[in-house]
Amino acid sequence: MATSPHEEETGTNTSLIQARTKVLTLINVFAIAPERQQELVDVLVEATEQTMRHLPGFVSANIHTSHDGQRVVNYAQWRSREDFEAMLQSSEARPHMARAAELAEFDPILCEVAYVDHA
Amino acid sequence: MATSPHEEETGTNTSLIQARTKVLTLINVFAIAPERQQELVDVLVEATEQTMRHLPGFVSANIHTSHDGQRVVNYAQWRSREDFEAMLQSSEARPHMARAAELAEFDPILCEVAYVDHA
Repeated sequence: MATSPHEEETGTNTSLIQARTKVLTLINVFAIAPERQQELVDVLVEATEQTMRHLPGFVSANIHTSHDGQRVVNYAQWRSREDFEAMLQSSEARPHMARAAELAEFDPILCEVAYVDHA
Repeated sequence: MATSPHEEETGTNTSLIQARTKVLTLINVFAIAPERQQELVDVLVEATEQTMRHLPGFVSANIHTSHDGQRVVNYAQWRSREDFEAMLQSSEARPHMARAAELAEFDPILCEVAYVDHA
């Protein structure tokens, strides 16, 4: 039912990027038609709120919109690669991933944080 | 001179992802041959330490290595789009960007944070 970010979630929530942790980072870049960018954001927010955040090992989802309208990037964090793989296999997650796949091409990058420099 | 992350920088530094801020996020995805992944990380770390962090509006650089060895992602934050554009024009930044471009194809995505959900 989530359609747009709620104040209490986007206003106060903060994700952390730190090097040398065991957190798995998934950087998922979606290519989208600009007129459907918001629709894709809504699908990803709904997936997060209905399903992902309730699965074991969920750390964060951070959904970015490109200025040119042609991309959406989900910078997601999971406690471990095992938790992430279990999510991929879960019957709850699959319909959300299928909906996103109907809307956009995506390129998921599994990675770790090698270096952080903050001013 | 930087060759690898220094303990004092990666051990204690933390970047924050928050929605509804004016921060510009640059998600730069580099495609690289796996045997040169570490070399590219070193180039980006050096660029950050020698130059980027000293430019006005630098907030953070967060360099990620993909598990398959084929990508490096710099999740960078600048105070504003204007600061980022000024960096692109600066004579100090250009040699670093040229070195990275010699090593890898890259796809910079300028974006903002639309939504954050943290467990």
